Amino acid sequence: MLNTFKKHVDKFAQVSNDEFDEIKKFFDTKGVAKKENLLAEGQICRHHYFVLEGLLRKFYINEKGIEQTTEFAIETWWMTDNIAYEHKLPSEFYIQAVEKSQILSITQDNQEKLVQAFPVMERYFRFVYQRAYAAAQMRVKYLYSLSKEEFYFQSVERYPEFAQRVPQYLLASFLGLTPEYLSEIRKKRSS
Amino acid sequence: MLNTFKKHVDKFAQVSNDEFDEIKKFFDTKGVAKKENLLAEGQICRHHYFVLEGLLRKFYINEKGIEQTTEFAIETWWMTDNIAYEHKLPSEFYIQAVEKSQILSITQDNQEKLVQAFPVMERYFRFVYQRAYAAAQMRVKYLYSLSKEEFYFQSVERYPEFAQRVPQYLLASFLGLTPEYLSEIRKKRSS
Repeated sequence: MLNTFKKHVDKFAQVSNDEFDEIKKFFDTKGVAKKENLLAEGQICRHHYFVLEGLLRKFYINEKGIEQTTEFAIETWWMTDNIAYEHKLPSEFYIQAVEKSQILSITQDNQEKLVQAFPVMERYFRFVYQRAYAAAQMRVKYLYSLSKEEFYFQSVERYPEFAQRVPQYLLASFLGLTPEYLSEIRKKRSS
Repeated sequence: MLNTFKKHVDKFAQVSNDEFDEIKKFFDTKGVAKKENLLAEGQICRHHYFVLEGLLRKFYINEKGIEQTTEFAIETWWMTDNIAYEHKLPSEFYIQAVEKSQILSITQDNQEKLVQAFPVMERYFRFVYQRAYAAAQMRVKYLYSLSKEEFYFQSVERYPEFAQRVPQYLLASFLGLTPEYLSEIRKKRSS
């Protein structure tokens, strides 16, 4: 299972097997049940999560008391509330498993110790954040330029596996649509 | 002027003055006139820009032929089209000086050579991307949870200097409002 992580590190940084044996000691491996929360609103955000297997989502509860999903993470994606994690602050978000998942987790202190001990991991995390930031920038562009319907169809096209795995009501929440309306536009498209 | 950059590096990484003298050779310093483009749609995105003094914006031209501003950068902020920059692709964006500006620029090849020669700069860029990603995540949350009016007033509150420097018509474009409507809600607030 840890091989998923080793492969991801290898994409961006050169780490020998011996080094990796040391690096992995900074992480905990954890099984998470479907719908189990890894983080809840108001808790200090202490962990950064890497999905080995499964699917996580991040959401907050809006003024109307409704869960608003802002992000998903599938295999090899990292997830946390980044501002709260860096500054050890209470989070405004929940992080929850959508599927039964296997994850790696690291604390902020351990992540700092890790990059001090293995500066090559600065390179790894630099790439992780660089890619995540680039994706977030594209998302902002789509939020300006695409209708919710277009954004949905583009997401399905780009990440077909992802769109199949995410339950429709969560996809609707992520897109800011009602589940009924999403179902309608999907029918329209397929007819 | 380069002192602005040195101070920013010092916030995140430990670099001696001798090292900095070598590091700065990887960058070019450049004066940019007001409304001058650093990048235009269709051009290969070859540079990453750091604002020493002044103000940049990033925009694309939408289907209606209108400039849609998606981002601003003031002193000590980095700006590029990150996906196009990493993969040396043609950009969908323009980067333009809003004010007469002084910037540092680095090419993707030089940035790679820099971090190879000075691994401590991996740490610096890791922090730069980490902070930028965290800010982009908060922005996505605001796009879900705040009305355009609320987003405007929150931006003014958080970045008062920034809101004063950006011309109202650009701020309106960034917010997805018409300049007339922005002027209206500002009057309403101040009355």
